Amino acid sequence: MSPEWSNASSDLLVAIDRDSDEPLRSQLERQVREAIRTGRLRVGERLPPSRELAGALGLSRGLVQDAYAQLLAEGYLVARVGSGTRVAAGACPPPSPPPPPSRPAGRSPLLADFRWGVPDLGAFPLSDWLWAVREAARGMPVAELDYGDPRGSAVLREVVAGYARRIRAAAADPEHTVICSGYAQGLSLALGALARTGVRRVAYEDPGSPASVRAAAAAAGLEAVPVPVDEQGVDVAALAATGARAVVVTPAHQWPTGVVLGPERRLALIAWAAAVDGVVVEDDYDAEFRYDREPVGALQGLAADRVVSISTVSKSLAPALRIGWVLCPPALTQALVSVKHVSDRGSPVLDQLALARLMESGRFDRHLRRMRAAYAARRAALLAALAEHAPDVTVTGLAAGFHAVAHLPETADEQALVTAARARSVGLYGMSTCRTSQATAPPRLVLGFGNVGERAVTAGIAAIGDLLTGRDPARSGGPRPGNRCAAPRPGPR
Amino acid sequence: MSPEWSNASSDLLVAIDRDSDEPLRSQLERQVREAIRTGRLRVGERLPPSRELAGALGLSRGLVQDAYAQLLAEGYLVARVGSGTRVAAGACPPPSPPPPPSRPAGRSPLLADFRWGVPDLGAFPLSDWLWAVREAARGMPVAELDYGDPRGSAVLREVVAGYARRIRAAAADPEHTVICSGYAQGLSLALGALARTGVRRVAYEDPGSPASVRAAAAAAGLEAVPVPVDEQGVDVAALAATGARAVVVTPAHQWPTGVVLGPERRLALIAWAAAVDGVVVEDDYDAEFRYDREPVGALQGLAADRVVSISTVSKSLAPALRIGWVLCPPALTQALVSVKHVSDRGSPVLDQLALARLMESGRFDRHLRRMRAAYAARRAALLAALAEHAPDVTVTGLAAGFHAVAHLPETADEQALVTAARARSVGLYGMSTCRTSQATAPPRLVLGFGNVGERAVTAGIAAIGDLLTGRDPARSGGPRPGNRCAAPRPGPR
Repeated sequence: MSPEWSNASSDLLVAIDRDSDEPLRSQLERQVREAIRTGRLRVGERLPPSRELAGALGLSRGLVQDAYAQLLAEGYLVARVGSGTRVAAGACPPPSPPPPPSRPAGRSPLLADFRWGVPDLGAFPLSDWLWAVREAARGMPVAELDYGDPRGSAVLREVVAGYARRIRAAAADPEHTVICSGYAQGLSLALGALARTGVRRVAYEDPGSPASVRAAAAAAGLEAVPVPVDEQGVDVAALAATGARAVVVTPAHQWPTGVVLGPERRLALIAWAAAVDGVVVEDDYDAEFRYDREPVGALQGLAADRVVSISTVSKSLAPALRIGWVLCPPALTQALVSVKHVSDRGSPVLDQLALARLMESGRFDRHLRRMRAAYAARRAALLAALAEHAPDVTVTGLAAGFHAVAHLPETADEQALVTAARARSVGLYGMSTCRTSQATAPPRLVLGFGNVGERAVTAGIAAIGDLLTGRDPARSGGPRPGNRCAAPRPGPR
Repeated sequence: MSPEWSNASSDLLVAIDRDSDEPLRSQLERQVREAIRTGRLRVGERLPPSRELAGALGLSRGLVQDAYAQLLAEGYLVARVGSGTRVAAGACPPPSPPPPPSRPAGRSPLLADFRWGVPDLGAFPLSDWLWAVREAARGMPVAELDYGDPRGSAVLREVVAGYARRIRAAAADPEHTVICSGYAQGLSLALGALARTGVRRVAYEDPGSPASVRAAAAAAGLEAVPVPVDEQGVDVAALAATGARAVVVTPAHQWPTGVVLGPERRLALIAWAAAVDGVVVEDDYDAEFRYDREPVGALQGLAADRVVSISTVSKSLAPALRIGWVLCPPALTQALVSVKHVSDRGSPVLDQLALARLMESGRFDRHLRRMRAAYAARRAALLAALAEHAPDVTVTGLAAGFHAVAHLPETADEQALVTAARARSVGLYGMSTCRTSQATAPPRLVLGFGNVGERAVTAGIAAIGDLLTGRDPARSGGPRPGNRCAAPRPGPR
């Protein structure tokens, strides 16, 4: 906890009262002592140079030096050449205990961690990103540093609208494009805007992301209701029966089942939206990565007036960038922009300009091509390993993205399997958390291979293949005492 | 609108149907034509190189080259050496009209623009910021690129908590510090968290920021009620009469009057919060800049369990960074973090690490010292110019920050004055927009001098001094036909 990063400010908050009977030096010493005792100044923190503090307080430098010398003598401070005057160890209450590690590991210490929802973090094009930040800053008009258009940078809106038109066959228009900080904010903005326009109930796919949608709906004051998904995607007849006027769907690659919303369902969904004067919220989360199928355009391209389409760079670049965009039906743009304005006034500008530069330079595409090849190789490794070590397990949902669904024998116990695998240092995650009911049947695993290397995929499946075949994990390598696994923590959606 | 930035993607969305009777080349040509006709591809946009498109579609390169040649011949495309193949001008519908300029000018083209709420944008330490981004990226653990703690980077939380303790005498603890994207989001998070804990009504200072608070309150499902401000700050007796259990205040430098919340009022406000089991939301917006007064610590330091304190770098660095932080009462932290998680999962990580590096390096302090001197000089210039050109006008609120309040003669017409000044190319802003009632009496101007240079301050006041003295603007230089001013647009708060 030694804060080597400590701030060397001349603005230590000390109040000198010239009308007091207490001598000035005594006032200064007393207040610094109090600041140390109460923890305002902590061990290792640097005090301002005596010249600066004297200037800030209107005192002579000699007086400040004398006060520092007194506090050094009393053991409150220590002075080292080249490091300034700092708070001495033992002079103040122990700092609050360090927080528990709150970030997941980039690559897990596990043999293989099939956590879903995270791309290959180690492959993030950091030097390209830093290049783009520099390029964006060069010649950036000073006005860009002001409060701006809550929709986001006009430059980035042009770029992503063009991208959405070309790559996703979307009917995108910069005027009705709003930059947001990833899918989660996009969903919050969309539901907030729908609530303003009188929507009261929103449906979502089940299985899907029940926790995320329900929390966002509750924050917007909406009721959230599940709708089942089958091999053609969301069940539109069941949707119509809910009375909802909005639905959140993943048409290109249903989360988590991986099915593609069929052509007839697409038309039925649009017809439903028109009939109820409603809106479809499209989560276009991993459209960049598809393998052995024809491309599927965004639903938004079919009915730009009925679909809010949300994209993110969390899967294509990295979640930590927190950038996404929303294509709005023109009738909803104003309400959505208003929610964005209230929420945060707009997204950080330099990041937006950097993303625009990255995309228009071709470096973003180059990264996508590289990642597509890497994910395709992992996907092949996963299929090969499963074929070898668990030949009875069916795998679906692999046409796009970087996760697959493993269908376990009907008798398998999802939770016991996850626990047993963890005891062998393999992170597995069941589909039950994707179901509104949390039901563990039928037993399924959602295998993410975004942030796990090809060799680890192979080794991980080899290590747990026997568990997948339906043998009782308790007999084939269940948890050992003293080696209990942590709760699974899949990435947010 | 020539998109020189155009994306050279190999992923142009084209679907080739090998079961179709239509020849492959014809399918490709037809779809590119349609993309151009419908505006999916716009004038100047670059098509993927033939080799890449061929690879992506599983076609021969020659076939793609032939299709391009055909479309060149038909006038849909143009090819230039070194610039690739692009959509020809005139081949597609005109792009949507360019959006109206949505960003304010950094420095206004006016002679002097006393717009408030914006710091000196031209003085933003861009090269220091870029240095900090690079430094932060160097050696950043890969795990930082993942979804992280919704409270924000542990490193930045340590740094800003230490800063708040030292500079603002706050009782700050990284565990209960939440990084947000500026004051607006901090307020939304605080009100959202309060709503979750049963608060139904929030009070705010009047004059103050009625529009901002009311919008944020409405989004959180809270009722917002105004409370008057006098020379000692917010009227605590009037506050108690509202029945509210939360209040939003600006204790260090009341917005916009500039008064400091008096010592007795501070204690009364804390006592009120304890009595109603309520919370004070402290907007600590321009604490970095104070001049000829003793420093005033954050209210939060007096009662960390009753005060939510929100800080931002919008005034100390630039609004476009969108970074701030919230110091939470421990009992409210969980609810506030939960609102942040639903809102956007957390703020962008690299920006947070860069700010931490900027602060711990001392470069942030150096910038503040520079700006304090600059604003002090502008403040002196403002006072001198007013003394010379409008000696009857009283000015208050100048102890801190970068705005002042000019008290006009009781007979002055605020709106006419603003209009008349605009006709002389001087941007003035009345206090009426800061009042819930929008009342223009008593007539006051809020003079921002953050983003207007010293010479412009002098020249601007010289140009309109006579208007401030209460002469009828219509007789002393009112608006001329054909030169009407735009509506005033002060910066957001």
